[in-house]
Amino acid sequence: MLIDHDFKGFPPLHPPLPLSAIGAQGWQLLRGDLALPLAVLREDALRHNLAWMRDFCAERGLSLAPHGKTSMSPELWALQREAGAWGLSVATAWQAAQAARHGMANIVIANQVVQAAELDTLAGLLDRDPALRLWFLVDSPAQVALIEAWQVARASARRFDVLLELGLAGQRTGTRHHDEALALGRRIAASPALRLAGLECYEGALATCNDAQDVPAVNALMDRVDALARALLAEGAFDTGGAALILSAGGSSVFDLVAARLQPDLGVPVRGVLRSGCYLTHDHVHYHRHLQCMGLRLRQATTLQPALEVLAAVQSVPEPGLALLGCGKRDVSFDMDLPLPLWRAQPGDTAAAPVPAGWQISRLNDQHAYLRFDAADPAPEVGEIIGLGISHPCTSFDKWRWLPLVDAAYRVTGAVTTRF
Amino acid sequence: MLIDHDFKGFPPLHPPLPLSAIGAQGWQLLRGDLALPLAVLREDALRHNLAWMRDFCAERGLSLAPHGKTSMSPELWALQREAGAWGLSVATAWQAAQAARHGMANIVIANQVVQAAELDTLAGLLDRDPALRLWFLVDSPAQVALIEAWQVARASARRFDVLLELGLAGQRTGTRHHDEALALGRRIAASPALRLAGLECYEGALATCNDAQDVPAVNALMDRVDALARALLAEGAFDTGGAALILSAGGSSVFDLVAARLQPDLGVPVRGVLRSGCYLTHDHVHYHRHLQCMGLRLRQATTLQPALEVLAAVQSVPEPGLALLGCGKRDVSFDMDLPLPLWRAQPGDTAAAPVPAGWQISRLNDQHAYLRFDAADPAPEVGEIIGLGISHPCTSFDKWRWLPLVDAAYRVTGAVTTRF
Repeated sequence: MLIDHDFKGFPPLHPPLPLSAIGAQGWQLLRGDLALPLAVLREDALRHNLAWMRDFCAERGLSLAPHGKTSMSPELWALQREAGAWGLSVATAWQAAQAARHGMANIVIANQVVQAAELDTLAGLLDRDPALRLWFLVDSPAQVALIEAWQVARASARRFDVLLELGLAGQRTGTRHHDEALALGRRIAASPALRLAGLECYEGALATCNDAQDVPAVNALMDRVDALARALLAEGAFDTGGAALILSAGGSSVFDLVAARLQPDLGVPVRGVLRSGCYLTHDHVHYHRHLQCMGLRLRQATTLQPALEVLAAVQSVPEPGLALLGCGKRDVSFDMDLPLPLWRAQPGDTAAAPVPAGWQISRLNDQHAYLRFDAADPAPEVGEIIGLGISHPCTSFDKWRWLPLVDAAYRVTGAVTTRF
Repeated sequence: MLIDHDFKGFPPLHPPLPLSAIGAQGWQLLRGDLALPLAVLREDALRHNLAWMRDFCAERGLSLAPHGKTSMSPELWALQREAGAWGLSVATAWQAAQAARHGMANIVIANQVVQAAELDTLAGLLDRDPALRLWFLVDSPAQVALIEAWQVARASARRFDVLLELGLAGQRTGTRHHDEALALGRRIAASPALRLAGLECYEGALATCNDAQDVPAVNALMDRVDALARALLAEGAFDTGGAALILSAGGSSVFDLVAARLQPDLGVPVRGVLRSGCYLTHDHVHYHRHLQCMGLRLRQATTLQPALEVLAAVQSVPEPGLALLGCGKRDVSFDMDLPLPLWRAQPGDTAAAPVPAGWQISRLNDQHAYLRFDAADPAPEVGEIIGLGISHPCTSFDKWRWLPLVDAAYRVTGAVTTRF
């Protein structure tokens, strides 16, 4: 794969480079070798997080199918697979095709599939690669009917493996009640187009960082999963093709709480599949807060480390207390929190220095960040490099087609690409 | 240029297609030929907006350098050029390189350039193409010093054409006061690295849709531009190389107010450069509101038409009053307003029907939209196609690498690509 002038942040007049050659260029970001803004991944933090999650799952006997939609990066997916991930979760059939193209053998579409064009893609992927295993979510008889209509329209014998989704009232997708879920399980079991391979839920919407609330709420959801699994097992509704029954859950906030419930003793082999996606890069604000809560539950002083930073240059300090950075909504996530100034460096510095505690980003335009600072602190200077921490990796990744990997001194050691 | 499986929304198993062949595929979105979500451009509205803006500028003798950062689409830039645009505005040196690569001859970087790596790019672009004209903004002596330091470090004789930026207290970049601006103009005029080609400001931050407030506020800003131009002309500070003096302004909300002030009689030739970017696709919420106000000022019943829509499928209706669409923060802008449900169609319908007035999107996740509806209205159905209007085209464009062009029946007639 070639990285070239069409990849935002790549030097526009530099000849295209194979991805594998990026690390050999000797680029040093504190020296100003690449124009900013630029999103980068701290390699030390990535390695730490990969090992931490590998151990977390191994200790609990869980299978990891990290949510690939977070990064949509084949190179990061490969690192996750090398670190023991069993499969990959994705959100759409288009993303599933990317996962299959990049060699993922077990793909969980953690979403309902309802469109004929999507079913065409999934059937095509399965036809092309008999070794591929692929699951998607079902939460309504209407969805089952659409898939059956597709099967008839295409005169296809294809049966799809699906997971029945349990949901939460007022929240996202998924069946709300036991009886409704049970009836849907029977409906799926009776369908010529589907095989019921397991159950799925998403507990992430319950996370508040208050154990007194989160622990019982997640347990109540997992109690429903447990009860439905037993009821459908009793009726022989599952068809796992000889494989283990799949129970899957796991956002990136309270996945320890579901992890403890994904391998229940149901009298049949069970594969507990954890789908957390943001653990890989973690972040500096939103997931930082949630993992601090998880660290207290796990009695671990440190858990994950933030790996994703966005670097920007100060382009103007037009009045006391206000500096403008050349970085905006197109470059960094802003949907959960605004970015967090972490460090500063003059081009040519060999190391970055922490910014004063009072510095904050108050606003983003498309291409600008408003940095507010206390007049009593040393002011940012025009041309200075500012390192920004982020909140919510998903919506930072999707603004970049490549992200350099950097060491602790911000030397570029490699790069990864994305597919958004 | 080939469109393939790496372009989100392109059928993943379809062979790659030249961009020029997309329109010949016979794809019909209401028939479900392409999986959703998908962002599309209504060709009728695009053509209308191109002609409207061409006439707007022609009637006022203005030069249009539409902000290319909105779409970052070479094919749309070409349409704008064919419709008479004099140049293109961009936000960064990287974007300027894209503009130059795609044949734009007059490029305004409507931003400060401060990084050596960016100056290297601009110098390289100018070295490669002697016919290229390129301007960027300067708003501080510190910035001038950085550019001079670059010139010395590179042992370069390159002088850059720049526009001095006037800014607003409490707002973004730009000099705040006349005396400060005058001193900076002198500093630029004396610099061996720069030529002062004109003045620039951005009035968009003043727009409130209240004429009693906006008209005097924009006029006060343009009064400052006028006074500074006269003062610097009196001192012979400009160096336009024989070309007209450039005065540039223009966001996408109140550009009629600056348009009236961009060609003052200064006793020298003046090129008034309007930089509006969002006019091309317009939108359904934010700019819709601002153009309604402008329409009243211009005494025009209709002005621009919304061209950008995002189509999504209903994937679940899990409880009364709530449907989930397969479309989220990765697919549609949400920074100014949430998307607006416009129409609905069952796959196979030949025409779309308006949605009930009460339908609204209440929330987005990364890959989901929450559609709230009144139980008294006909409910959305699983599998149904929903057309969404958007607010703020910039942050919808940047989520897509290609956008099909569609006719009024949602037949795909072509496509454009983006460079984010």
